[in-house]
Amino acid sequence: MREKKQNREKGRLRVIPLGGLNEIGKNMTLLESGDDMMIIDCGLSFPDDEMFGIDIVIPDFSYLKENRNKIRGIIITHGHEDHIGSTPYLLKELSVPIYATRLPLALIKSKLEEHGLSGKLNAIEAGSKIRLGAFKVEAIRTTHSIVDSICLSIDTPAGRVFHTGDFKVDYTPVDGEPIDFARLAELGTKGVTFMMSDSTNAIRPGYTSSEKIVGQALENIFRRSQSRIIVATFSSNVHRVQKIIDNAVLFKRKVAFSGRSMVKVANLAVELGYLRIPSGTLVDINKIKNIPDRELVIITTGSQGEPMSALTRMAAADHRAVQIKKGDMIILSSTPIPGNEKTVSDVVNKLIQKGAEVIYSDIADTHVSGHACSEELKLMLSLIKPKYFMPVHGEYRHLKAHADIAENMGIKKENIFILENGNILDITEKNAYIKKEKIEADAVMVDGLGVGDVGNIVLRDRRLLSESGLIIVVASVNRSTRQVVAGPDIISRGFVYVRENEHLIDQATEVVTKTLNTCFDKNKKDWNEMKSAVRDDLRKFIYEKTKRNPVILPIFMEV
Amino acid sequence: MREKKQNREKGRLRVIPLGGLNEIGKNMTLLESGDDMMIIDCGLSFPDDEMFGIDIVIPDFSYLKENRNKIRGIIITHGHEDHIGSTPYLLKELSVPIYATRLPLALIKSKLEEHGLSGKLNAIEAGSKIRLGAFKVEAIRTTHSIVDSICLSIDTPAGRVFHTGDFKVDYTPVDGEPIDFARLAELGTKGVTFMMSDSTNAIRPGYTSSEKIVGQALENIFRRSQSRIIVATFSSNVHRVQKIIDNAVLFKRKVAFSGRSMVKVANLAVELGYLRIPSGTLVDINKIKNIPDRELVIITTGSQGEPMSALTRMAAADHRAVQIKKGDMIILSSTPIPGNEKTVSDVVNKLIQKGAEVIYSDIADTHVSGHACSEELKLMLSLIKPKYFMPVHGEYRHLKAHADIAENMGIKKENIFILENGNILDITEKNAYIKKEKIEADAVMVDGLGVGDVGNIVLRDRRLLSESGLIIVVASVNRSTRQVVAGPDIISRGFVYVRENEHLIDQATEVVTKTLNTCFDKNKKDWNEMKSAVRDDLRKFIYEKTKRNPVILPIFMEV
Repeated sequence: MREKKQNREKGRLRVIPLGGLNEIGKNMTLLESGDDMMIIDCGLSFPDDEMFGIDIVIPDFSYLKENRNKIRGIIITHGHEDHIGSTPYLLKELSVPIYATRLPLALIKSKLEEHGLSGKLNAIEAGSKIRLGAFKVEAIRTTHSIVDSICLSIDTPAGRVFHTGDFKVDYTPVDGEPIDFARLAELGTKGVTFMMSDSTNAIRPGYTSSEKIVGQALENIFRRSQSRIIVATFSSNVHRVQKIIDNAVLFKRKVAFSGRSMVKVANLAVELGYLRIPSGTLVDINKIKNIPDRELVIITTGSQGEPMSALTRMAAADHRAVQIKKGDMIILSSTPIPGNEKTVSDVVNKLIQKGAEVIYSDIADTHVSGHACSEELKLMLSLIKPKYFMPVHGEYRHLKAHADIAENMGIKKENIFILENGNILDITEKNAYIKKEKIEADAVMVDGLGVGDVGNIVLRDRRLLSESGLIIVVASVNRSTRQVVAGPDIISRGFVYVRENEHLIDQATEVVTKTLNTCFDKNKKDWNEMKSAVRDDLRKFIYEKTKRNPVILPIFMEV
Repeated sequence: MREKKQNREKGRLRVIPLGGLNEIGKNMTLLESGDDMMIIDCGLSFPDDEMFGIDIVIPDFSYLKENRNKIRGIIITHGHEDHIGSTPYLLKELSVPIYATRLPLALIKSKLEEHGLSGKLNAIEAGSKIRLGAFKVEAIRTTHSIVDSICLSIDTPAGRVFHTGDFKVDYTPVDGEPIDFARLAELGTKGVTFMMSDSTNAIRPGYTSSEKIVGQALENIFRRSQSRIIVATFSSNVHRVQKIIDNAVLFKRKVAFSGRSMVKVANLAVELGYLRIPSGTLVDINKIKNIPDRELVIITTGSQGEPMSALTRMAAADHRAVQIKKGDMIILSSTPIPGNEKTVSDVVNKLIQKGAEVIYSDIADTHVSGHACSEELKLMLSLIKPKYFMPVHGEYRHLKAHADIAENMGIKKENIFILENGNILDITEKNAYIKKEKIEADAVMVDGLGVGDVGNIVLRDRRLLSESGLIIVVASVNRSTRQVVAGPDIISRGFVYVRENEHLIDQATEVVTKTLNTCFDKNKKDWNEMKSAVRDDLRKFIYEKTKRNPVILPIFMEV
């Protein structure tokens, strides 16, 4: 009750990160004031190596479900998966209007359709102002590696809040629409109580290069190439795709798209007018055979070496329309996301082995980051001059580096807050502090249709099974006569190649028989006692013989 | 018979890489001439992500075992795991004398002792010449990230062969012993028929920095630090460890070692005179409590974020002697090996969260590579001027880049050979070619005590089990009365959390019962038919309900 009262207090704001802190991915932030809530972004993240079999990871929506009547809307800063990817999962739980600029909105719409959902989708544009309960939100143009990115100025009962979204300072963006610095400066002058800013590149010194650099690098490669060109990049990077198409047109080449998401996003971007493809330029990927190599560019997915992507299939000679051949010029216009280094180099090796020349970020400027480096972060801080500051979007080392930058820029140490997901930052114009209590904000794992049904026990079992496989011991037992009626049989999966290890299996069977007889002799008839005796003795035997610890499952049936 | 005759032909040499091509690791090369064979290096590699549960990977020794009587010796170029790690596994199969300089020899000795082995170990030194059957081998000083590294000049019946080992050109090595360029130039002048050269850094332009750079970076950090310093690095990098100790002495700090391999290698290196620690400098890691923070340096393993390493345990607050605290200055004197990026950044995040300042390769010159970049490779090629050239030690992209460098340096394209492990390069002074036949040289996986008993089927099962776990269906069946006597029961591991999914399990049980009854109705009594019907129906049901594909194991017992 007291809590509720306090919330209603005028001039008080609670900021609750639901994702995006101490991680790269699933960005989501909740603002709460009195009986009004609004959400910024609703992203997903990809599983780490320990999350066996998991498809994607989404934020925990429990707190939102408890407060479903208070949520006035979600506003999306841009169309990357780590900002929009969880929208279908949220909309399955809650009916909330979504506000986004046109490209992210189209991407969300298509995503919802795949899940058989529709939603209350509202288009906004840079310069738009919308009211979400107690919050007045202004969308402001920013630059990032996807078109139509915005940052947010939000008037709240506790004063003005500024959220950078993801950004870099690109003075020469491909679409000619730089960050609206005038508006940012104006906001800073008027006064900003609280700022959240992108920390992804906070440990990198200097500035991130303009997207223009990549356009020039591509032009140089196109100019000297006499062969077929294949460029792999992120489908969402519409500016990059535009530059590739521009170069294709310049050097009189046709363009074919390969990869489901590349085709999808390109179509959306053309429809919305973000991508301009001169008529006669595009050809169907299945009809490239008649086009001379030096008149063709293929734009494809797979720049991260994703297992089923188009480029990976080309590398494995498993792509229906494209066979890699000697002389092909392949450009990876990307940098491996941490964790993907090995899969990317596997793909590169296979392509080179097929005789292609491969240009990738290790050896050329074919990619620039979409995130601000430390000097750009300083610029943003010096424009906005917030009273309170919270670094967002990053691992702890990134958040800490960004906090240090803010402190160096003159923000008081006690006004800088490094939160964890689920922490509650309580803000008034006079003070701000992290509350002791937290809300549930653990990662929710999605496996197939299951959302959150794979927990730590299931993951632990998957890990154990993956390490040394499984041994099943089956026997039919008559407990009253103390007899093994059938079996014991030993069945294994992922343990050893049984045909070459028959002796070991025979010995293991003997161990089990002996243990069961000992149980009978000692008059142990309890199933669990028997199972645990068999498990212990067999584990010991197997470890001694092999130094391995397979999962051991005794299954006894009473007859 | 003809093959054998041909081998005996005077002036003929066969070079067979057994490992180290199209991979980073398990370097091993066989030279064969007539009835004499010699081996260069005997390394291991670490499993990739797809090799579930595998501890290490070693070369296939089948061909060596078939020719055990011909092998005159193994010569080791330096003491890294990817050059010595498989020696115990080879010596379990074959009795072959090993020749190495003193540090690698001591490391091999300790390794063999761990396996309960001894071996015919022979110390050589730079400048030594030994005869191995038809081969006269000369060890020549080179520089690499471990002391006591050599390259090899080998007089063979087909002319002189030169093998660089792993190397970089360090004009200012810590021990003051640079590459013996005079001897290399002399060999080049006299004429070298065939050269094998380290390709690890062939795609990197320019030069690798001297180890001296790291010494200077460390000195700068030591100079300004007022707190405890913890440096993580490779235990084998004795020069690096020496520089850390030198700086400790300079700034009046004591030194403690942490981590099993760090202690082991440091002891060996001190014993052999490679590491000089002034008396009174060393303290036991368990007795650091009484030493003021600003008078202490801890040198530790774990720079790759290895799960059980000392630094990882410190980060997890799980190290007996070292508790990380606010103000600690931690230096990762290393670069993550591809594939380790995530584990390293996890450790960094945890250390920073504990209040430590962490300096790592992303933000300072605290590491240099041990391998030659392209300009150094050119220098080596221009000194040795081989007739035939074969790039070694690298993935395909590295080998190809090195081959391109060699071609640019004037070696004829047809004299440059990119081989695969198991290929046979046949060389005379007049010509060289890759033979059509190959020998067995697949990766041999070691899991616990098992060498090579985990093959592709076992690995596939481990992968499947790791993805969606396992469902076991058990029933006791009386086939003559067509009755299920007990069960069917469903047992799962790593699939779903059963307590929260009882309904699904109940439904699955019904599916199985129905399928079994259908089998009985149709008079199907064959076990395999019944099992496969159950497996198919259950798989379909489970996939429909969950979009997952667990391994399904039906187990029926006749009663």
